[in-house]
Amino acid sequence: MSIAKAVERLRTRFEARASTGASILDLHSKGEAHHAGVQPDAVLFPETTEEVAEIIRICAEEHCPITPYAVGSSVEAQVTPVRGGVSVDMMRMNKVLAIHEQDLDAVVQPGVTRSELNAALRHTGLFFPVDPGADASLGGMAATRASGTNAVRYGTMKDAVLRLEAVVADGSIIRTGGRARKSAAGYDLTRLLIGSEGTLGIITELTVRLHGLPEAISAATCGFPDVEAAVQTVIQTIQMDLPVARIEFLDEAQMAACIAYSDLDLEPAPTLFLEFHGSQASVAEQAETFGELARDNSATGFRWAVREEERNALWKARHDAYWAALAAGGPGRKVYVTDACVPISRLGECILETKADIDASALAGPMVGHAGDGNFHVQLLVDPESAIEAAEAERIADRIAKRALRLGGTVTGEHGVGLGKMKHMRAEHGQAWDVMAEIKRTLDPQNILNPGKIVEIN
Amino acid sequence: MSIAKAVERLRTRFEARASTGASILDLHSKGEAHHAGVQPDAVLFPETTEEVAEIIRICAEEHCPITPYAVGSSVEAQVTPVRGGVSVDMMRMNKVLAIHEQDLDAVVQPGVTRSELNAALRHTGLFFPVDPGADASLGGMAATRASGTNAVRYGTMKDAVLRLEAVVADGSIIRTGGRARKSAAGYDLTRLLIGSEGTLGIITELTVRLHGLPEAISAATCGFPDVEAAVQTVIQTIQMDLPVARIEFLDEAQMAACIAYSDLDLEPAPTLFLEFHGSQASVAEQAETFGELARDNSATGFRWAVREEERNALWKARHDAYWAALAAGGPGRKVYVTDACVPISRLGECILETKADIDASALAGPMVGHAGDGNFHVQLLVDPESAIEAAEAERIADRIAKRALRLGGTVTGEHGVGLGKMKHMRAEHGQAWDVMAEIKRTLDPQNILNPGKIVEIN
Repeated sequence: MSIAKAVERLRTRFEARASTGASILDLHSKGEAHHAGVQPDAVLFPETTEEVAEIIRICAEEHCPITPYAVGSSVEAQVTPVRGGVSVDMMRMNKVLAIHEQDLDAVVQPGVTRSELNAALRHTGLFFPVDPGADASLGGMAATRASGTNAVRYGTMKDAVLRLEAVVADGSIIRTGGRARKSAAGYDLTRLLIGSEGTLGIITELTVRLHGLPEAISAATCGFPDVEAAVQTVIQTIQMDLPVARIEFLDEAQMAACIAYSDLDLEPAPTLFLEFHGSQASVAEQAETFGELARDNSATGFRWAVREEERNALWKARHDAYWAALAAGGPGRKVYVTDACVPISRLGECILETKADIDASALAGPMVGHAGDGNFHVQLLVDPESAIEAAEAERIADRIAKRALRLGGTVTGEHGVGLGKMKHMRAEHGQAWDVMAEIKRTLDPQNILNPGKIVEIN
Repeated sequence: MSIAKAVERLRTRFEARASTGASILDLHSKGEAHHAGVQPDAVLFPETTEEVAEIIRICAEEHCPITPYAVGSSVEAQVTPVRGGVSVDMMRMNKVLAIHEQDLDAVVQPGVTRSELNAALRHTGLFFPVDPGADASLGGMAATRASGTNAVRYGTMKDAVLRLEAVVADGSIIRTGGRARKSAAGYDLTRLLIGSEGTLGIITELTVRLHGLPEAISAATCGFPDVEAAVQTVIQTIQMDLPVARIEFLDEAQMAACIAYSDLDLEPAPTLFLEFHGSQASVAEQAETFGELARDNSATGFRWAVREEERNALWKARHDAYWAALAAGGPGRKVYVTDACVPISRLGECILETKADIDASALAGPMVGHAGDGNFHVQLLVDPESAIEAAEAERIADRIAKRALRLGGTVTGEHGVGLGKMKHMRAEHGQAWDVMAEIKRTLDPQNILNPGKIVEIN
């Protein structure tokens, strides 16, 4: 029983689809996290669920760690095989298997990305709303319970998935849930797998909910004199239960970065990016209601993006906020991103205290967030060669995480636990973390599925 | 180690709040299910989370089964203590602990009923939408993953709960999740407990999401020449993604029963009960769009309930559909209710085949359902003294359950597994049912928490 034995068996079985090439191993050593990478001993490229099951069965027999990988866009090192073993690259399982237009759902393999699914839906009048910054794979998005700019209206991956197929630690293939919109038939294994980051099973198929494209969409940007006014506007919008589809906050530093990176004709002031979905009348109504709130909070520079290209350019710029920050950091600097999420009534306090931390630090940290969910990110710009800067980023991130917990929130709104948030799990969950460990221990007694993530069991 | 020893210790500790009175034992032997009751050996009335923990610790030491009980409105015998032991009556834990108006959430004890919570919200402009037929307890509703008439727009208890406090099998108190609107911090224990029917822990506190009362509400009933036309209208409404708040189907038999029971001035034809929520303009728009669809499907007798009293009378009648069916059955007859839920595109097929089953049977079976979710109930009217009728009801129910699975649905949309749906779990879940059993075995190794429900582990 050994990793070497597993790799040998897998190479015999999968031949060229079990790679030990240096560049392949390096690529699969890490995602977008600031953490140091760890190379796997081999990378497997399965093409079917049965092949994933075969890989897991061989690894189970040889006691070899297995870490799933897809686009590699995770920012908390979920894909880093910290104990070596095999990285299972899911990107060859990239077919849209079925689109059920009448039921508003689609069946996809895990390597399909969110934009690929939306491209496949182009002529149906339907869309898939969950949109993390990266064009992530749907399997990875489910595994990390991802969300994005539409979550305030359409929910996160927790809400978007109807059922899953997954291979569990003994190589069995399970299917959770059905295609009905709801069910009360036993334990919710679908939701248990969502957010489990590959530690309980590898997702091999997803059935996801779709939504009708709204009849009308209008988007806007809205600048504010200060961060507090922008955040107050978000809080009031949510408290009114106004059904905004998107309400995103960018502080002045993030705006400056985005303006430079995406060539936006906007001011570098604290800004909200908004979108309203509905009928013509309801979109107009929502926009008017929001406009009043914003003006009451001294908004300046309301700008409507009416044409589709303008709107797409706006949201492309928003999704590129990470790259914009990276560019603003200059050569050699990396982004260390935080992920606090708090009850909306505490969002102002959380952001302002965090802002004070950044102002008092030598590091720059543009802020951007899904403010309607109470979720925001600080993109700390760090020279990874500088131990001082890395320590400073860590210190600020820790303060933010603890602040989120103190305010009744969570250390991760959407990026997941990975390696980066492990140290906060006890504080966030208390004894419930032990229950998570018990579940892991029983479903993966050898601890071969992405060991070292979410729970500590040996 | 014995039940008798546990009861003795609990009586010493809880005195009058550990009852063995005959009428109390009888009351806690069953809910609204058609299944035979089984009396507990004692009924406990805890008043705090700590007391629930104490009860569980004593029972764990004495290896004594524990079954939670609240309103007793479950229809699948979830509350029946099939292996004796203690019934834990949660109705003294009935406080609304906090209402966070700004965050749109409330913290409640499990014995608070849905109408009590809404009464507490009366002056806030907020409401709690999940509304099963009975005025159930929120703890029970979470434990059975309940839904109701608003689920098509506002979701089920899966969506309504932000976090839980629960006592698990060793007497530990755990808290799952936080008050933030989303989190990616580890396994979703909140969703694991929701729908677990007291088999993994006893819920002692819930934080639930609230919604703003819509600016405008309009309700209507709409009769159709036949079942198919009514169901087609529902299907088209959902496929258009029209944001109806409620869209309920009652067949002609159920309408006749409701007209008689609730003195409704309507015709005994297949009928939809509808409600639209939104701004004045959007409600008008939704109603118009729906009206066109309905007319295209030959709807007759569109009736608007404009005034609040009319609307309340309408939904009261809908919520009383169970009692109306019971009354229509005549003295001595009981309701045996089914709970299929299928993808919306298969709903017509499922209902029409079921209708043919009922027409071919000697039993009456009014039909009513949350058709917008693909969920419907047949309320089979059965003389419990007649073995022939009971067997016939069972035969029809089995056919409906198998049909739902064949059509890609679930045997229970909202009533849960209890005893009634156990026999279908293997067919519905396949190997995933074994994973559920593993989870149960690890979190409740002695099988003391509501044994005999959801999974079979010994």
